[in-house]
Amino acid sequence: MNFSKELLAETEYVNRVIAKYLPAEEGFQKTVISAMNYSMKAGGKRLRPLMMYKSYLAFGGDEAVIEPFMAAMEMIHTHSLIHDDLPALDNDDYRRGRLTTHKVYGEAMGILAGDALLNYAYEVMLQAFDMTEYKERVVRAMRLISSKTGIYGMLGGQCTDVENDGRPLDEALLNFIHIHKTSALIEAPLAAGAILAGASEEQAEQMEQAGRRIGLAFQITDDILDVTGDEKTLGKPVHSDEKNGKTTYVVLKGLKKSRQTAEALLREASDIMTASGGSTEFLCLLAESLTGRRK
Amino acid sequence: MNFSKELLAETEYVNRVIAKYLPAEEGFQKTVISAMNYSMKAGGKRLRPLMMYKSYLAFGGDEAVIEPFMAAMEMIHTHSLIHDDLPALDNDDYRRGRLTTHKVYGEAMGILAGDALLNYAYEVMLQAFDMTEYKERVVRAMRLISSKTGIYGMLGGQCTDVENDGRPLDEALLNFIHIHKTSALIEAPLAAGAILAGASEEQAEQMEQAGRRIGLAFQITDDILDVTGDEKTLGKPVHSDEKNGKTTYVVLKGLKKSRQTAEALLREASDIMTASGGSTEFLCLLAESLTGRRK
Repeated sequence: MNFSKELLAETEYVNRVIAKYLPAEEGFQKTVISAMNYSMKAGGKRLRPLMMYKSYLAFGGDEAVIEPFMAAMEMIHTHSLIHDDLPALDNDDYRRGRLTTHKVYGEAMGILAGDALLNYAYEVMLQAFDMTEYKERVVRAMRLISSKTGIYGMLGGQCTDVENDGRPLDEALLNFIHIHKTSALIEAPLAAGAILAGASEEQAEQMEQAGRRIGLAFQITDDILDVTGDEKTLGKPVHSDEKNGKTTYVVLKGLKKSRQTAEALLREASDIMTASGGSTEFLCLLAESLTGRRK
Repeated sequence: MNFSKELLAETEYVNRVIAKYLPAEEGFQKTVISAMNYSMKAGGKRLRPLMMYKSYLAFGGDEAVIEPFMAAMEMIHTHSLIHDDLPALDNDDYRRGRLTTHKVYGEAMGILAGDALLNYAYEVMLQAFDMTEYKERVVRAMRLISSKTGIYGMLGGQCTDVENDGRPLDEALLNFIHIHKTSALIEAPLAAGAILAGASEEQAEQMEQAGRRIGLAFQITDDILDVTGDEKTLGKPVHSDEKNGKTTYVVLKGLKKSRQTAEALLREASDIMTASGGSTEFLCLLAESLTGRRK
């Protein structure tokens, strides 16, 4: 099977897994559940659960225990998108061509649906203890994911980004923001997938390091496309960083150097994953596909 | 030791435990950590971690494993307060006589600090796996707490309350809201404390049932005090329910019947706790003290 076909097939599987773990829209509280599911069903590349699943397979995992983790990973990511879109943060009315959650359900429900998705991710991960004999791996995976989600991960990056909004950033601060805001939720699925499959500490650490580089490359590519892309192909407005006075890699380093850095980071990520000894061929191709990503 | 002295001593212990588990205010993300700690240090009765600790002792618990759970319980509660105070929800500028989190740190940081506290509660609970041989109890306690926090618990109640804001409510809906919004985070510490101490399923269920009644009594008392209390003694504005057109127990049932119901619920809660066979004397007194609560 070639990469594109495999990507399509696996994404369909990921979507089925996610659908299986969504809460039923019933009870007095059904509106918030609808809001959660509205956001979860908005589509997107499902990159994080896909990476988690492929990392799990790469290290020989063969149990259903990965499934609640895949769904939880997407719930955490979606939680961050819902709150990121709120008026007090990015104030976005549209995402992936659909109205954002708070535009459909109101701001209060947007806040609470985001909270509910974050919490539900843990409810779902806790189900995993009944699905494997390897309880210790579940604990380790949950620890890693929770750490990469919170103040030492994605949320720490979000807050630092918010706090420095509109200010010029130096490279150290820009890296901190992207390593936390973007890389952390790539590191988490890659390393947690490996951990759940029984990979060694060292292998999990390698997947985490690869994830860090993929996240950064992903972000730099995003910055580049905001300058060079066109709105139709990307499906979102371009030149938004410039308009918002945002410091990006392109601003700090220029286009050429940014492209080189993104490519170097992806090469490093592939080398690290290959060196880990896992069957990471698909993940290497997936990482590569991200620099040339189109909608 | 009499009840008041014991309450004071134990609350001081609870405060020390909470302080121990707060994240250090350092790094590029230190503002959000300050915002989390600002909210956590705002004081309050620490009722939930106190109840958890006393329930743990009541069933013979004697390990430090209860401490991360106590801190996490207060983090979850504080998360709900921060988000509840936001402009899109209750829009409160003050809580416990201090400016609310979003008034001090801005609305974006208020949203993210709330998220961060909810997530950090899980990071802290996950530490508990290293503090006891009884890993299965940690899993059960985490499951209970996560369920009582999310859409089938507190957040489900919050959303239903928000959605029906300003509308007249019937008794079924009012009960649903309070059982979820208020009781759930009383049920969680009482039952989780018992579980962590090794109580049986039945005993944990009894503590949960007692918590449900205590939470409802707590809420009815709050409704009563909003009508009969005075601002100075309570430390918060009175007649706010009437001003906001809120359906309360007092509106539905009248003052006399509301008082009777609150007392009956507390008696039931005490009877259930006593029947559980745990040493719940302090918890019974604590529950009783809630109907006559003054600031």
